Amino acid sequence: MTIIDIINKKRLRKELTREEIEFAINGYLDESIKDYQMSSLLMAIVLNGMTARETIDLTDIMIKSGDIIDLSKIDGIIVDKHSTGGVGDKVTLVLGPLLASLGIKIAKMSGRGLGHTGGTIDKLESIEGFNTKIDKEAFIKQVNDINIALVSQSGNLVPADKKLYALRDVTGTTESIPLIASSIMSKKIASGADIIMIDVKVGNGALMKTLKDAKELAKLMVRIGKAYRKPTICLITNMEEPLGYAIGNSLEVEEAINTLKGNGPSDLLEVVITLCSIIIGAVKKIPNNEAKNLLFKQLNNGEAYKKFEEMVTSQNGDINSIKISDKVFSIKSDKAGYINKIDALKLGEIAKMIGAGRNTLEDEIDYEVGLVLSKKVGDYVEEEEELVKVYLKDKDVSISQILECFKIDDELEPVPQLILDIIK
Amino acid sequence: MTIIDIINKKRLRKELTREEIEFAINGYLDESIKDYQMSSLLMAIVLNGMTARETIDLTDIMIKSGDIIDLSKIDGIIVDKHSTGGVGDKVTLVLGPLLASLGIKIAKMSGRGLGHTGGTIDKLESIEGFNTKIDKEAFIKQVNDINIALVSQSGNLVPADKKLYALRDVTGTTESIPLIASSIMSKKIASGADIIMIDVKVGNGALMKTLKDAKELAKLMVRIGKAYRKPTICLITNMEEPLGYAIGNSLEVEEAINTLKGNGPSDLLEVVITLCSIIIGAVKKIPNNEAKNLLFKQLNNGEAYKKFEEMVTSQNGDINSIKISDKVFSIKSDKAGYINKIDALKLGEIAKMIGAGRNTLEDEIDYEVGLVLSKKVGDYVEEEEELVKVYLKDKDVSISQILECFKIDDELEPVPQLILDIIK
Repeated sequence: MTIIDIINKKRLRKELTREEIEFAINGYLDESIKDYQMSSLLMAIVLNGMTARETIDLTDIMIKSGDIIDLSKIDGIIVDKHSTGGVGDKVTLVLGPLLASLGIKIAKMSGRGLGHTGGTIDKLESIEGFNTKIDKEAFIKQVNDINIALVSQSGNLVPADKKLYALRDVTGTTESIPLIASSIMSKKIASGADIIMIDVKVGNGALMKTLKDAKELAKLMVRIGKAYRKPTICLITNMEEPLGYAIGNSLEVEEAINTLKGNGPSDLLEVVITLCSIIIGAVKKIPNNEAKNLLFKQLNNGEAYKKFEEMVTSQNGDINSIKISDKVFSIKSDKAGYINKIDALKLGEIAKMIGAGRNTLEDEIDYEVGLVLSKKVGDYVEEEEELVKVYLKDKDVSISQILECFKIDDELEPVPQLILDIIK
Repeated sequence: MTIIDIINKKRLRKELTREEIEFAINGYLDESIKDYQMSSLLMAIVLNGMTARETIDLTDIMIKSGDIIDLSKIDGIIVDKHSTGGVGDKVTLVLGPLLASLGIKIAKMSGRGLGHTGGTIDKLESIEGFNTKIDKEAFIKQVNDINIALVSQSGNLVPADKKLYALRDVTGTTESIPLIASSIMSKKIASGADIIMIDVKVGNGALMKTLKDAKELAKLMVRIGKAYRKPTICLITNMEEPLGYAIGNSLEVEEAINTLKGNGPSDLLEVVITLCSIIIGAVKKIPNNEAKNLLFKQLNNGEAYKKFEEMVTSQNGDINSIKISDKVFSIKSDKAGYINKIDALKLGEIAKMIGAGRNTLEDEIDYEVGLVLSKKVGDYVEEEEELVKVYLKDKDVSISQILECFKIDDELEPVPQLILDIIK
């Protein structure tokens, strides 16, 4: 068996055996197979596809390339949640404490933000002292004690995916449903949770450009989950505008806290409640509307927020320390009309440019900067009325660039549905 | 413009602009574009193709990556000839002197053999003292004096093709008609001849597996030639059996000499006369059958051989030095019947194994070893009658492996046509 035979087989659109995929991945890790051979194979996979069987084998081989987190010492059902990358996406910050307040275990390892999307770990680190680097023993103890711990990825989790992803990123081979599915699912399965929730974003600026592709990705991930007996629930959500109003680390934590206290924006609530009610309904064996009522109760009676506070305290964070820049600018609309679109991707890029995000993992970020929308899609804005508040520190921003993110027309277009499908 | 944009464009099956192809090729040469990015782009080209316009641009950019041989100091029409790689292919050794004896200029740079096919330079170097490394001045003087010089490639001819070919070879990206066409034509055009003749081999062991692909390649090369006003003539020939009887360096030179003296095998003669009569007919403005008569006359009256001798002498070779191993084995058929097929590729591999060819350009070859067929396709063989003579030196060969190359049946199958098409 040689890598050239394997590349040629996939070039001719044939199904690779498990042994062939293993040969390619393990050879790539031990460097007997070179970057230029792997990128050629990856492009052949991007263009000629992979069957579900090949994708499940690839996922399994990637999982076995590194550590697999053993969470068996945690009692109860452990839930993990992933998003394919949204702007203003603070779902984990709300969903985690909310589920934990109802006895579900949240033992979650998160990543840092890169490019136009933020990361849960960065958001949490905007809380002074919040320690995301706790060791495995303390991590398990905290989940057993208070049901929740949110920490940064540690250990050697799926090194094959790390190496492959770095290569895909620089060789135009990111857009492949089987490669995306195996990349996401290998990390989720290696992280050890029992139930996996995935928010698949769809839209112009999202990873999946069309609903058809998003559904195909979701179905494939659910199928991979089944192969591991790990129920996987995918929500397909529209990325036509940022989620909630706030974009930026401290600003998003503040919005998450408000949501946990019962004052959340309706779109953020819709995603959180939809995902959580599926879990709670299944675990507590109650109908979905009862589960929803229970969840709203936890938000309104302070229990969900209390769980968040407990977690922050347990991880040495100071909940009263959250700082937001006082250099605030109000950006006003240059015309009146209905807001038919807010470009989430472009606003994410602007937030990154003013310091809320990073281009490379080495870049420093500024927790205090960001944007807060004053209007959402479907709202009417008067000329000279505020569209967005910008919180700046040392970097500047162009007003016209911000205004270009808003599509304002005389006529109101139908407001797009937020949750497009649930696949499980 | 970034290489990732270019890869993505080709991944989406879009036509690249000249500027984009230039960016990719020149960036690859100056190493700002990495091997792993180029191999990804190459696989996208293999699978999504290139238009004729893209292929002509790619060829032009590759030509301009290095030296272009200036043959303007040679008077008369200069002809170059290329084969996509045959076994026992000594066409150049016959065609060159034959055309030169009629006043056509043959200023040809040839390569060495690699894999199962031999190279003209290796064959010529089996003549003791034959110097293939003469400088440009001497090369041009020799062609002006005696109409012919066969030398090894020198100078920095199409470095982009060298670098790309080395990468394609190890990344499963060789099989692409536009990439093959631009690789062949860039070298031919940079070599400076006025008329280009190409023998496109088709068959199981050949570069082109089907007549359809071979025709497509031929048409594309003719089109590229037109873009440079260099008439290009492609012969599509069957590689169902080796050309002539001899395989191996000295053995092939011996067969070429016999052919130049008027005693050539009919298949070799058919290819040589077909190619040469097109040139002679056009240059001398005479009908094709008259051109053929003229060519046969040159073979029978000794003029063609005399030209070969003149070339050998001019390049310091000793025509009487040709050595063939005296360790000869006669391989006899294990059954009687009609020979319906002789596997050229496998015989080429066997010739390589016994020392007539090389796996890498660094390997030494043995000029004296090889095989000489006693029978050709369509012949009848008795049990225990000789099928092939093997000339060995220090390496051994398995008799059953040789016998497997011959398909012998009770019934005679129709003998396949040798020349399948002429495209010009």
